[in-house]
Amino acid sequence: MRIRFHERDAFLKSLATTDTMREIQSRRCFVTVFADYVHAHRDCFLRELQEIVRIPSVSTEPAHASDVRRAAEWVRNAFQKLNVSAEILETGGHPAVLAERNASPSAPTVVIYGHYDVQPAKKDDGWDRDPFSADIEGDKLIARGAADNKGQFHAHIKGLETFLNTIGQPPLNIRFLIEGEEEIGSPNLGGLVRKQKERLRPDAIVISDTSMYQVDTPTICYGLRGLTTAEITVIGPNRDLHSGTFGGAVANPIHALVEILAGLHDSDGRVTIPGFYDDVKPLEPWERKAWAELPWDDADYRENLGIAELWGERGYTSIERSWGRPTLEINGIYGGFTGVGFKTVLPHSATAKISLRLVPDQRAKKALDLLENHLKFIYMNGIQINVSRLAGGNPVRFDVSGPWMDALIRALKTGFGRQPVLMRDGGSIPIVGLFKEEFDVPVLMAGFARPDCGSHGPNEYFSICDYNRAIITSATLLQELTEVHLGDV
Amino acid sequence: MRIRFHERDAFLKSLATTDTMREIQSRRCFVTVFADYVHAHRDCFLRELQEIVRIPSVSTEPAHASDVRRAAEWVRNAFQKLNVSAEILETGGHPAVLAERNASPSAPTVVIYGHYDVQPAKKDDGWDRDPFSADIEGDKLIARGAADNKGQFHAHIKGLETFLNTIGQPPLNIRFLIEGEEEIGSPNLGGLVRKQKERLRPDAIVISDTSMYQVDTPTICYGLRGLTTAEITVIGPNRDLHSGTFGGAVANPIHALVEILAGLHDSDGRVTIPGFYDDVKPLEPWERKAWAELPWDDADYRENLGIAELWGERGYTSIERSWGRPTLEINGIYGGFTGVGFKTVLPHSATAKISLRLVPDQRAKKALDLLENHLKFIYMNGIQINVSRLAGGNPVRFDVSGPWMDALIRALKTGFGRQPVLMRDGGSIPIVGLFKEEFDVPVLMAGFARPDCGSHGPNEYFSICDYNRAIITSATLLQELTEVHLGDV
Repeated sequence: MRIRFHERDAFLKSLATTDTMREIQSRRCFVTVFADYVHAHRDCFLRELQEIVRIPSVSTEPAHASDVRRAAEWVRNAFQKLNVSAEILETGGHPAVLAERNASPSAPTVVIYGHYDVQPAKKDDGWDRDPFSADIEGDKLIARGAADNKGQFHAHIKGLETFLNTIGQPPLNIRFLIEGEEEIGSPNLGGLVRKQKERLRPDAIVISDTSMYQVDTPTICYGLRGLTTAEITVIGPNRDLHSGTFGGAVANPIHALVEILAGLHDSDGRVTIPGFYDDVKPLEPWERKAWAELPWDDADYRENLGIAELWGERGYTSIERSWGRPTLEINGIYGGFTGVGFKTVLPHSATAKISLRLVPDQRAKKALDLLENHLKFIYMNGIQINVSRLAGGNPVRFDVSGPWMDALIRALKTGFGRQPVLMRDGGSIPIVGLFKEEFDVPVLMAGFARPDCGSHGPNEYFSICDYNRAIITSATLLQELTEVHLGDV
Repeated sequence: MRIRFHERDAFLKSLATTDTMREIQSRRCFVTVFADYVHAHRDCFLRELQEIVRIPSVSTEPAHASDVRRAAEWVRNAFQKLNVSAEILETGGHPAVLAERNASPSAPTVVIYGHYDVQPAKKDDGWDRDPFSADIEGDKLIARGAADNKGQFHAHIKGLETFLNTIGQPPLNIRFLIEGEEEIGSPNLGGLVRKQKERLRPDAIVISDTSMYQVDTPTICYGLRGLTTAEITVIGPNRDLHSGTFGGAVANPIHALVEILAGLHDSDGRVTIPGFYDDVKPLEPWERKAWAELPWDDADYRENLGIAELWGERGYTSIERSWGRPTLEINGIYGGFTGVGFKTVLPHSATAKISLRLVPDQRAKKALDLLENHLKFIYMNGIQINVSRLAGGNPVRFDVSGPWMDALIRALKTGFGRQPVLMRDGGSIPIVGLFKEEFDVPVLMAGFARPDCGSHGPNEYFSICDYNRAIITSATLLQELTEVHLGDV
């Protein structure tokens, strides 16, 4: 079964005189080999995936710091088992894993990015089981991080394994960069990437950390919103007060906070921060048209979410609002007594966690500057407003044509048996903006998570069928990228 | 030392031909006896008080239910040790303790009310120690419940002990009603009081659950604000969503909640609920004048609270706003991710805990009806508003003259060596409204807690000096009430 690649390469080159022959070889033959391998190893692959999702690598919670490191070690070991050299790189925060397999200096370099850290999850949040039990129910592997992002990057590791154990060594320099701080905005990865720039030097970057447009529909994402976050804390009296004794005479920080927050949107659903929309590039007519033609039903969407009506910026469709327009969301709020029962307290302070989703050509830093500046001009009796800036990433949009993108389209078509759709995504992967700025090479984003996969919410799951398709897609992509390279020669 | 009361009574009556003699006897002589007894037993009293404050009888937290019952048993035992019959009365919620000592059917009946339950307290709330350690530092006994209300009702128990062990049996029917649900709005005490109406049948009610106007200033409170509370929950999508994927297309319940809450006050600090002020009796000119003459300095008040400015309803002084005007306070708010770090969630729901403080002649039920009705007319896309009504109590104001009130004034003058001041209080004791409605007898409210005692906040304390003064005041009050009775004969 093991065919050395250079033999296959020579063979292929000899056949590559007609597109038809090449098509047969590269698609049908390889796919069969990959599919056989994945089929034979599917239980073993799944058990490995269960192992990594059981590690509660919640990057935002200091109590989980050792779990985060344990996850990094697991990822490094996964590469080492394939005889792919891998090391843990310290970042000052949670570590990243860099794996590399080199073909030759003249070969193109592909960087596959993923993250092994996950969002917080507690059973109380609405999960119907322990979020880290990694139970399998039918086609679903249910666990925090199963879809976002462990299942997806693991499919690429298994794709590489499939390639190595069937075809052999590809004539590509391959790097995997799997980080541990994506869910907290990748605060340290920028420094790491700049430090490792010479080692990475990609010709293309592959990322699977987005969603499929719908079930059974392979999807390429060519744009992401940027994200920047901040905490607004309103401070009133120097201690918690009895709201009977002091209420009416002293400003309540919760009142001040809700007034500030309520003022951040107007009645058209637009963000009121002065200058917020200045750098927003209008949606292009072709995009609005293409998106309008996608299968989409607001009624289904509402029904799935259990709401009577949608909401958002006036003048845009639901897709346009979530993929192509900026937002300000309050992601958390707390102040005063939040336990069971009641406590008549006039609290010392109240806090909101806010995120801004940005679209081209907004910049994360400038958006936060505008927010901060806006809050500076709010004056309220007897309270102070503190803004603490958290991490951010810029929005991106990539070209939807070119040989690398075409290779991805073919690989997805192979793995899923269908033509992929092109979409943008409302979510944000901070590192993508950084890659765009540092390397300016094609970034190929193919997400394998279903739209209802529950990432960031309860009962997150990854489809086992899609996991296997993703592994075949990944192995096929290595083959397709090889051919782009060979085509260039 | 033990003098039977009837002997002392006969002796007194023989002397009572001149006011001067009576004054000497009733004030100087008895006070000396009480003071000697309190002085001799002060360490023992304090140890007992430490015992009861160490029981974390937090009525609002289900996890503390057994502590609440333990506190009730402790209180019952405290009476039984004095040979005062006492029993635990079940209420459906936390139990109450009813103690009684009868003189004769023709004797007047005095009911002393207190509560053994406390507000929640955790070290994290800003306490500089375990809130239930009951440490003594200088003159302070520091603990949750030390001032509100364990120290205060315990002073009355020790006042009775002092009287019984010096003068003997007073010609009064005395009942202590010490409940366990005051901090959750006394939801079950109304039923209990109505059931025990014949046994209670008071001629006067004594309550020490308010504050002194300032240090060393004995204070009678003749009015309390009413209190009614509710929880507003805004419900959006049927699960927590990823705010990148869905943000902009779906209403965020936190946004809706802050908008609703921000709309509950206007820019003059007035509550916007239609009809809210309809039943508010304007402050009387004599009250505004008397309050303006009290020693008060807004600058000191601000400095003590660490705020640059005060806030509240335009057109009223700080005292007027906190004692005599109604308010709406947000006592707690939560929604989305509230832990350390960040989670980009668009949450399923968000909740606020709200209290309305009411003044005569507002009614708790009507105020909640108005709030609920107001919220019913708020329409927002894709969200539902749920209001859950919690417990409430009506505001009260009592006559500041009459023989019972005069007796309290004399007792406080004796215990503290100073003329008491008359005030209203912004706080609420739900049972006071109930007493007023059920019995329509004088309610004598003398609070022994200092204004900075920290009730409902961190580092609550009770002055040990005031505790001893309160015991002497309580014993003297029994003597003074006896004389009102004898004067009636």
